[in-house]
Amino acid sequence: MSTPRDIQFDALARELGMEFQQEIRAVNNYQLAVRHKDEIWVSGQLPRIGAQVAVTGRVGAETSFEDAKRAAQICVVRALAIMRQTLGSLERIEKVLRMTVYVQSAADFTFQSEVADAASEILYSLLEPQGGHTRSAVGVFQLPKNASVEIDLVAAVSPCS
Amino acid sequence: MSTPRDIQFDALARELGMEFQQEIRAVNNYQLAVRHKDEIWVSGQLPRIGAQVAVTGRVGAETSFEDAKRAAQICVVRALAIMRQTLGSLERIEKVLRMTVYVQSAADFTFQSEVADAASEILYSLLEPQGGHTRSAVGVFQLPKNASVEIDLVAAVSPCS
Amino acid sequence: MSTPRDIQFDALARELGMEFQQEIRAVNNYQLAVRHKDEIWVSGQLPRIGAQVAVTGRVGAETSFEDAKRAAQICVVRALAIMRQTLGSLERIEKVLRMTVYVQSAADFTFQSEVADAASEILYSLLEPQGGHTRSAVGVFQLPKNASVEIDLVAAVSPCS
Repeated sequence: MSTPRDIQFDALARELGMEFQQEIRAVNNYQLAVRHKDEIWVSGQLPRIGAQVAVTGRVGAETSFEDAKRAAQICVVRALAIMRQTLGSLERIEKVLRMTVYVQSAADFTFQSEVADAASEILYSLLEPQGGHTRSAVGVFQLPKNASVEIDLVAAVSPCS
Repeated sequence: MSTPRDIQFDALARELGMEFQQEIRAVNNYQLAVRHKDEIWVSGQLPRIGAQVAVTGRVGAETSFEDAKRAAQICVVRALAIMRQTLGSLERIEKVLRMTVYVQSAADFTFQSEVADAASEILYSLLEPQGGHTRSAVGVFQLPKNASVEIDLVAAVSPCS
Repeated sequence: MSTPRDIQFDALARELGMEFQQEIRAVNNYQLAVRHKDEIWVSGQLPRIGAQVAVTGRVGAETSFEDAKRAAQICVVRALAIMRQTLGSLERIEKVLRMTVYVQSAADFTFQSEVADAASEILYSLLEPQGGHTRSAVGVFQLPKNASVEIDLVAAVSPCS
C-alpha cells in the first residue's frame, strides 16, 4: 500500500537516481534492520545506488563537499527504504531518535555537520511534522568500500494498524 | 524549580566558564534532544561555551591532553544542560545508558579513555547514586568546526512527578 | 548455571585464548554494562585477553587483516562475557540490536565490513536462531591503548525466569 509519504519518497529517490523495485539485501553477514518492540535499528548504510557505492573518496580532498552531501542523501534514502521494506510503509516511522553520520574526511575538512544537514533535510521533508531527530556527525579516517559517507539510524515505530 | 542536583550543576558549569541563562538552540538542522517514552537521546555536543567552540585542534598534536579533558567536560555539561531544558530538571535523569566520546586524535594519541574519564567523573559526581554509565571512546580524524571532542548521550528518564 | 549456549561460549573463548574465571572489571571510570528494562548496553570493548590488549596497531599498515579479524572476535567475546556476568546466562540475550565496530585503519584500508564479519559470525553461531543483528563498521584514526578494534553492543534481554 502506497501512502502519500511513500509516494513522496519514491519521487525523492528517483531524483537521486535510486529505485527500489527489488528488495535490498545485506551484502555482509548481518541484518539491514532489527525491530524490537517500538524501535527499529538500521545498519550503517553506504551511499549505494543498487549494488554500487556511488560516492567514494576522502571528502575535502579527492571528493567535493557537494558530492558528500549527495552521498549523505543517498545513505539516508537507503536507510528509509530499508525501514519501508521492514515496516511495510514509511507512515509507521514515528520519530527518528538518532542519526549518526560518519564522513570520510580530509585532515582539515570540518564541515561534517553541513554534510549531515543534507540528510537531515530529507528526514524533515519526508517525516513532517515529526521530522525532528538527534544526530551526531563525525569525521572518520576510512569507511567500507572507500565510501565517502556512512549513516545509521534508530527510530521509533508506531504499531501495525 | 531548582533541585540540589540542578544547583550543583550550575556551580560546576560556572567553574568551566559556562552559563545557561538562555536556551541552547541547535545550530544546524536537527534537534538537540528527542524524548521517546522513558528515553532521551541527545545530539553530539561540541565543546561550546555559548556559541563559540572553546577547544579546537588535534589532541596530541596542537591540542594538549589537559585541554582535551576540559573539552570533554564542556561537552558533557552542555549535554546535561540540554537534558535539563528538555526535562525541566536534572533530577529526572535516571541513568545514562550510553556516552560516546569522539576525540580528534593525532596518529599516535591513545589516551581517548582518559579524556573520556573527565566527562565520566562529572556524570558520577552529579548523578549519584545512579552515575554509572556505559561508554565508548574512539579517536576520529576530524570533527565539526575543528572541535577537539564531541560527545553524545542516551539516558533513561523518570516520569514527570 | 551453565546452559548449552554458555558451554558453547566457553569453548569458543578458549579457542581464542580467553578465560573468564574472574569477573571482568572496568579499567576506567565507567560501567561495563548498564541494564535498563529489557535492554543491555555494553561499553566499547578492546581486544583484551585478561588485562592485556592483545591486538594493537593500524590495520592495513603494521597490523594484518587476519589479526584485525581476530581482534574483532576477541572484542565481541569480551562483550558477550560482560553480558553473561551481568545477566547470569547468555540464554537471556534475545537479540543484538546494534553492534558498532571501530577499526583503527590505514588511510587506504577499506575492509572494515569484512573485519566486522568475524564478530558477526560469532553472534550468529552463538545466538541462533536469534543471531541476526544490525551493525555499523567504520575506520577510525586511533583507539584507546592503540587497540586495532573496538566494539560496543546494545541488546534486548529476556526477563529472569
